[in-house]
Amino acid sequence: MDEPIEMSLDPKDWSAFRRVAHEALNDALDFLETVRERPVWKPVPPEIRAQLLNEALPVDESPLETVYEQFRTRILPYATGNVHPRFFGWVHGAGQAGNIVAEMLAAAMNSNCGGRDHGAIYVEREVLGWCKQLFGFPSEASGLIVSGTSMANLVALGVARNARGPLRTSGVGQAADRLVAYTSVETHESIAKALEILGLGSCSLRKVPINRDATIDLSTLQQFIAEDKAAGLRPYCLIGCAGTVNTGAVDDLQELARISKTEDIWFHVDGAFGALCMLSEKLQHRLKGIEQADSLAFDFHKWAHVQYDAGCVLVRRADLHRAAYSMRPPYLQGLSRGLGAGQDWPCELGIELSRSFRALKIWFAFKEHGARKLGQLIERNCEQARYLAERVATKPELELLSPAYLNIVCFRVRAAGLDEKSLDQMNAEIVTDIQESGVAAPSTTRVHGRLAIRINITNHRTQFRDLDVLVNAVLKAFHSRLALRIPQLPDA
Amino acid sequence: MDEPIEMSLDPKDWSAFRRVAHEALNDALDFLETVRERPVWKPVPPEIRAQLLNEALPVDESPLETVYEQFRTRILPYATGNVHPRFFGWVHGAGQAGNIVAEMLAAAMNSNCGGRDHGAIYVEREVLGWCKQLFGFPSEASGLIVSGTSMANLVALGVARNARGPLRTSGVGQAADRLVAYTSVETHESIAKALEILGLGSCSLRKVPINRDATIDLSTLQQFIAEDKAAGLRPYCLIGCAGTVNTGAVDDLQELARISKTEDIWFHVDGAFGALCMLSEKLQHRLKGIEQADSLAFDFHKWAHVQYDAGCVLVRRADLHRAAYSMRPPYLQGLSRGLGAGQDWPCELGIELSRSFRALKIWFAFKEHGARKLGQLIERNCEQARYLAERVATKPELELLSPAYLNIVCFRVRAAGLDEKSLDQMNAEIVTDIQESGVAAPSTTRVHGRLAIRINITNHRTQFRDLDVLVNAVLKAFHSRLALRIPQLPDA
Repeated sequence: MDEPIEMSLDPKDWSAFRRVAHEALNDALDFLETVRERPVWKPVPPEIRAQLLNEALPVDESPLETVYEQFRTRILPYATGNVHPRFFGWVHGAGQAGNIVAEMLAAAMNSNCGGRDHGAIYVEREVLGWCKQLFGFPSEASGLIVSGTSMANLVALGVARNARGPLRTSGVGQAADRLVAYTSVETHESIAKALEILGLGSCSLRKVPINRDATIDLSTLQQFIAEDKAAGLRPYCLIGCAGTVNTGAVDDLQELARISKTEDIWFHVDGAFGALCMLSEKLQHRLKGIEQADSLAFDFHKWAHVQYDAGCVLVRRADLHRAAYSMRPPYLQGLSRGLGAGQDWPCELGIELSRSFRALKIWFAFKEHGARKLGQLIERNCEQARYLAERVATKPELELLSPAYLNIVCFRVRAAGLDEKSLDQMNAEIVTDIQESGVAAPSTTRVHGRLAIRINITNHRTQFRDLDVLVNAVLKAFHSRLALRIPQLPDA
Repeated sequence: MDEPIEMSLDPKDWSAFRRVAHEALNDALDFLETVRERPVWKPVPPEIRAQLLNEALPVDESPLETVYEQFRTRILPYATGNVHPRFFGWVHGAGQAGNIVAEMLAAAMNSNCGGRDHGAIYVEREVLGWCKQLFGFPSEASGLIVSGTSMANLVALGVARNARGPLRTSGVGQAADRLVAYTSVETHESIAKALEILGLGSCSLRKVPINRDATIDLSTLQQFIAEDKAAGLRPYCLIGCAGTVNTGAVDDLQELARISKTEDIWFHVDGAFGALCMLSEKLQHRLKGIEQADSLAFDFHKWAHVQYDAGCVLVRRADLHRAAYSMRPPYLQGLSRGLGAGQDWPCELGIELSRSFRALKIWFAFKEHGARKLGQLIERNCEQARYLAERVATKPELELLSPAYLNIVCFRVRAAGLDEKSLDQMNAEIVTDIQESGVAAPSTTRVHGRLAIRINITNHRTQFRDLDVLVNAVLKAFHSRLALRIPQLPDA
């Protein structure tokens, strides 16, 4: 049959297309090379928001050049900001230029990593092999590259749940009413959320108080477990935290491993950003015990600066991992040869059947930079946090709210005559003032009930002098705010 | 403080880095431009597998050039194959050159789309607005870009579950023992898997038989619901299928919408690939009723040829969507201005807190190609499926097992003297023979218990003549196999 019109989505004019693509690549690399010269963040102007939000579904074709031009003017200037050396908000990695290359190559291959027998599958296995080596997991452990620790926690806790019975078919039903998991009050909310999704409910998570250093209080934990067992409940899972989101504290993982063995319960570690301290010889002692976890969740897009999104879950017992998620209907039957060959398709180890080739950017990151340098940059961020904490301590206007356990420092401004509520408001305003100024991007949290300026340093571009800039910006914003407040104070 | 050594992950020599990046971009574009000249798929050679799997975690740095060279020789030649015009396996989209550009730009911005106030958030909203428009959802509906329909189904069924009570805190407990969902036996297994993950169990899903055209049998469905209610169970969810994975059948969504209204139960549509038939004026009547769904899951990486991975979930009632997943701990408190501003952060509508800028590649795809052309390509794939079915019907060695309801054709070879078991084996062998030959990539499934050669056409590069090549390859492989078999037959 003759094709009357040759039609596809491929460029009609490949050389014109290539010109635009190379121009876009230049701009992408310029964007990173000149990042320090730009504001950390600026808000999307209202007219651009309106343009984006009011446009109907495009019906007609447009040349790539036109689409690219829209991107360049309407979208590129308004990035989250985490590529900038003075982005200190939340826990964001800073990305890396090499991953621009990795992502374009993954896009060219357009692999679906749900399963089957092709190159991307082996790259993912290689990356998982590196992770097992790094964390002292046995080579027969299983793992999966996922979007991040929220997903990794969900996948792991699903394995822990399903290890308790044939819950896949029957549902958690009444059995679940007695299952109890334990973690500290400082653990990330994705743990509670995972339990909600899994049908166990957030009330099945007992939150254990913390010590002064923000780590889980082990004696209260043991007391809770004993009480629950006496009450006929079934403790089944203990979640340790390697790097709390508020202050960067690391639980005593070795003791948690011991307790979980004694009590015969699943030991999961949420190591979202902290786990990669294993890359540093100086810091890895802080993670002792992590190698005994039944499952481990962590991110590459934080402290390995892999581009968003990229995380990982490791599960010690591959049989339990597979038993929790494997499903191979007729159209996915494995074969001994051809494209349908291969054991242990990744879709058997998690939630997703369609999966992008995320492993490639991780592969590039570790190959290009090597574990040693990545570890040194993590160490430097921790040194920078200590440096910042020292600077804060020397300023009478500033109050340190949590020291630099790892890479996070929480502090606030203070002034005589301002009550706690006004201080909370003032500190929140200072954070947004600084964000809007474009000088830096801190974020906020609460420490001991107080609103804190939270500085998280997971940034390979940050230099010590950037922290001086930050402290000066806080003080400047504080004095401007104070000056504004004076007329509001009652007359003397 | 002076920085003794300037250290970051940024290139030491940007111009050298740029040279490699542009070379990689050229190779990436060459890879797509010349795809027709290469085999669809070839297995990863054992020595390359061994190289990939036996390498330890890299400790030292390597120049990007070296890493790229390893990629080019060890990984790039072994893609899944779905970019090729004769890839007909499973339901894979073929990708598009423009998304190579989109992905490199998203990588440069390195946005985290979990929340906050920045450009990527508005692009995602724009794309979701297009989807609401396309499917006739109200503008106040909510939605989320996810990895694919497995995730979208899970997110949607979680909303349906949580709409039945305060299950987030309490867990599904005993209440769940009585909840029942309904779908046809042909619906994708990700539905059952979602219910397993949600703690409801796959046994809470009643699988309804199908009509001869592989659509759900509506009278049996109504009978099941009546029986279950009489037995004291709580029907809560009805899942319609827009494009079954085996044969491409579309349920009567209008009738399903009516039943769900009458019974006051949630109506979810799994439209993984079929939903995008809405882009075609000729095909959209097949989806009538989809605009009444309470939730809808579908993929962009299939029939919109967006690069892996990209899917979407829409939920009619944003309040229920948010209520199922929203969680804003202190460090994620929204603010009225600055980076922490903005309502309805995407992390409140799903499982992931860290999220890549997936919306950009969808934005590029629709902007560059337009809805009309994407719809025309979908129509052409359906015409190609009909063409293939006609070709199969004219060949005495071939037996059509399911007609071209949409874009999928199932058939098999047959020969006198071969029993069903031998036919199953023969057809499976032919599929792998063809895959290994590199000429085409069909896959297998079972239709009415018989092993079928399954041809799925979600491929903008496929031309009608590619289907002639496929039929010839099947016949050639069949005759070779038959010739091999002769000595095994009993003597005449």
